[in-house]
Amino acid sequence: MSSSAFQAPPVLTLDELIAQRDDALRDYEALVRRGLSLDLTRGKPSARQLDLASRMLTLPSGHKAADGTDCRNYGGLQGLSELRAIFSGSLQVPVAQLVAAGNSSLSLMHDSIVHAMLGRLPGAERRWADEPRIAFLCPVPGYDRHFALCERFGIELIPVPMTDEGPDMDVVERLALEDPQIKGIWCVPKYSNPSGVSYGDETVRRLAAMPVAAPDFRIFWDNAYAVHHLTDTPAEIADLLALCEENGNPDRAFVFGSTSKITFAGGGVAFFGSSAANVAWLLGYTAKRTIGPDKINHLRHVEFLRDEDGLAEHMRHHRELIRPKFDAVETILTKELGGTGLASWSNPAGGYFISLDVLEGCAREVVSRAAGAGIALTPAGATHPYGNDPRDSTIRIAPTYPELDEVELAITGLATCVRLVGTEKLLEQAR
Amino acid sequence: MSSSAFQAPPVLTLDELIAQRDDALRDYEALVRRGLSLDLTRGKPSARQLDLASRMLTLPSGHKAADGTDCRNYGGLQGLSELRAIFSGSLQVPVAQLVAAGNSSLSLMHDSIVHAMLGRLPGAERRWADEPRIAFLCPVPGYDRHFALCERFGIELIPVPMTDEGPDMDVVERLALEDPQIKGIWCVPKYSNPSGVSYGDETVRRLAAMPVAAPDFRIFWDNAYAVHHLTDTPAEIADLLALCEENGNPDRAFVFGSTSKITFAGGGVAFFGSSAANVAWLLGYTAKRTIGPDKINHLRHVEFLRDEDGLAEHMRHHRELIRPKFDAVETILTKELGGTGLASWSNPAGGYFISLDVLEGCAREVVSRAAGAGIALTPAGATHPYGNDPRDSTIRIAPTYPELDEVELAITGLATCVRLVGTEKLLEQAR
Repeated sequence: MSSSAFQAPPVLTLDELIAQRDDALRDYEALVRRGLSLDLTRGKPSARQLDLASRMLTLPSGHKAADGTDCRNYGGLQGLSELRAIFSGSLQVPVAQLVAAGNSSLSLMHDSIVHAMLGRLPGAERRWADEPRIAFLCPVPGYDRHFALCERFGIELIPVPMTDEGPDMDVVERLALEDPQIKGIWCVPKYSNPSGVSYGDETVRRLAAMPVAAPDFRIFWDNAYAVHHLTDTPAEIADLLALCEENGNPDRAFVFGSTSKITFAGGGVAFFGSSAANVAWLLGYTAKRTIGPDKINHLRHVEFLRDEDGLAEHMRHHRELIRPKFDAVETILTKELGGTGLASWSNPAGGYFISLDVLEGCAREVVSRAAGAGIALTPAGATHPYGNDPRDSTIRIAPTYPELDEVELAITGLATCVRLVGTEKLLEQAR
Repeated sequence: MSSSAFQAPPVLTLDELIAQRDDALRDYEALVRRGLSLDLTRGKPSARQLDLASRMLTLPSGHKAADGTDCRNYGGLQGLSELRAIFSGSLQVPVAQLVAAGNSSLSLMHDSIVHAMLGRLPGAERRWADEPRIAFLCPVPGYDRHFALCERFGIELIPVPMTDEGPDMDVVERLALEDPQIKGIWCVPKYSNPSGVSYGDETVRRLAAMPVAAPDFRIFWDNAYAVHHLTDTPAEIADLLALCEENGNPDRAFVFGSTSKITFAGGGVAFFGSSAANVAWLLGYTAKRTIGPDKINHLRHVEFLRDEDGLAEHMRHHRELIRPKFDAVETILTKELGGTGLASWSNPAGGYFISLDVLEGCAREVVSRAAGAGIALTPAGATHPYGNDPRDSTIRIAPTYPELDEVELAITGLATCVRLVGTEKLLEQAR
């Protein structure tokens, strides 16, 4: 991940500032007149990306798993082992400790919390529902759906700043050690949502090794972009599960992943990986909830992806479609905002998002202005717990879903809004 | 549903009884020598039934829903409306109040309880997790997975006897009115698991209309066998949802169903139906758990089943495969046990099970003897809360999964076990 640093705003006279604001205003009015309707809100694959998996619609060619199981019938709670084998390497979880489930990793995170609330985690002194208070550490900026899950269960969200190496571990270690009610931390360790940061090895090691106050502390390791590279030098992150084991905290990590942004976003397969004890814990409760996952869809994925190489090859096709969109964002933001001191942004090496930081106090207004010009953005603040970005600065850009020309239009328009709101802010400060 | 009544045992001399026991023992020893390995435990479709949906493996032919939605992408929390339309009639739920979800109705029941535990049901004074005690009424014999769900969440199970018209409503009405901690009742209203009983209209009306102590009382209406007829005169049950509405209890019913025993047991679609308020309640929590169900699988089902007529036609093919197995059970049990006074059994008009009642105190021993002869049966007691059948009398027979000749072998063997254990019991009593 590289990121353009905020540059000190050029020293401008009041007249120069007014002229820039007027320019931006003219551009904005022209933008509004175009009557665009563009959507940069969610990290959805585009129709062309989904086309890459078209062949899946007529698979599987048979109905038997490698071990002879009839995938059409009930059973097989842990999911097809041949599918788990394809994802074991990229998710860094041994096949025997990996579960292949339904179509949503978010559901697995939800259910992990539910079972911790209403059952007892390995190591827990009591059910989370019986705790006076539960809190999770939330590196920010982060993923709004993680935060929403916690809010839904009354779990307190404690923000932790992100660095270029992952969450600020000094803060994480201090908080996790001093507060036994902190039961978890949300992590998107590779090409993080939305900053694009991949965790450094030392960050991962410290997460695995740090002493914590809660005996049932869990790292919710949402490795959503494990194979979603945008460059020839894929990010590699340290093996959390192995490090937890080595450091005497074998049950600390819950690993999540899915094929939602690999095959079909609505019809993929989600994965859970952890220690043998945690897997037995989850499957024990899951057995009450279902007789088994959709093994036909597992088989479909096995036939389509074949093996780890097939998966990597498929992801290269995604990259060919996505990369030009990320490049366009970088090019346009550099051209429109570079050197203005009005914004900085990430230039991620993978994942689905670009994080744009505008002048403090400007993000909501930028999003509002963009909406006024027909450009839908994720609400400002969504990247922070409770939707509250105290600096009102971070905007998440999701460039994958629109076609390339739409991305170009939308980002150009967004840059106009940043210029307008930014120069207005500077004027306000100058007066 | 018809059911052979227990007949008074013929009056036998001790010598005659001994001779019968010796006959049975000889037959049992011969049975054991055959070294069978047969399984009548679970209500699973057979491979031939699953073959009926083979065409589904190469569907869908496209990826667009009727409204133009790209089913490959995220979203569409309530599921495809064209799929809901196919099942609206048989499940007796208006399309707008029906949710099409993942592959398991058990999961929807589980999640409904979870959301009631950790959220607040319409009408509830508090979360179930904050109640001192929660109890459900359980008509017996019933479905072990329903009971297991309650046990998992610490919900007390209160047995209610079944009649030929459904649960004994005098008991249900009395208990539901006197105990505000009774929050629900499990019902399999059509071709009930395992007795085959379909609820009478008056039963359904009373369930909908009865005054109850708990403002958040719910009927868990597991209409698992809504279209699973074995005769030309399909059972029709009264419309619970409409009756609840008419009687001023619009939020009382949770309706569940699935295609597990229609298309693929592992790869079907599950449904939830209820009042608009309950649907909004469920979807509100579901939105935190997932971005949407597998709409590709919904579309696959729509293309395959087409419409309500297509569904009915498909179910006739199932019937052609299943009916001979149920007939074989009836024929063999009549031939082997008719007039002996040792057993009575159901002869259901639909569904997946036959309920066999043996002499009091004999069910466990029969199941154990059958296991000794290589015939696997659901554990005796499984049809009762906590696995405790106080009369030790009911055995659930699931004849769909084995091939016909295996069903014949298994039931003949089972009848031998019933004769052996029954005559031993009578001898014990006679001495």
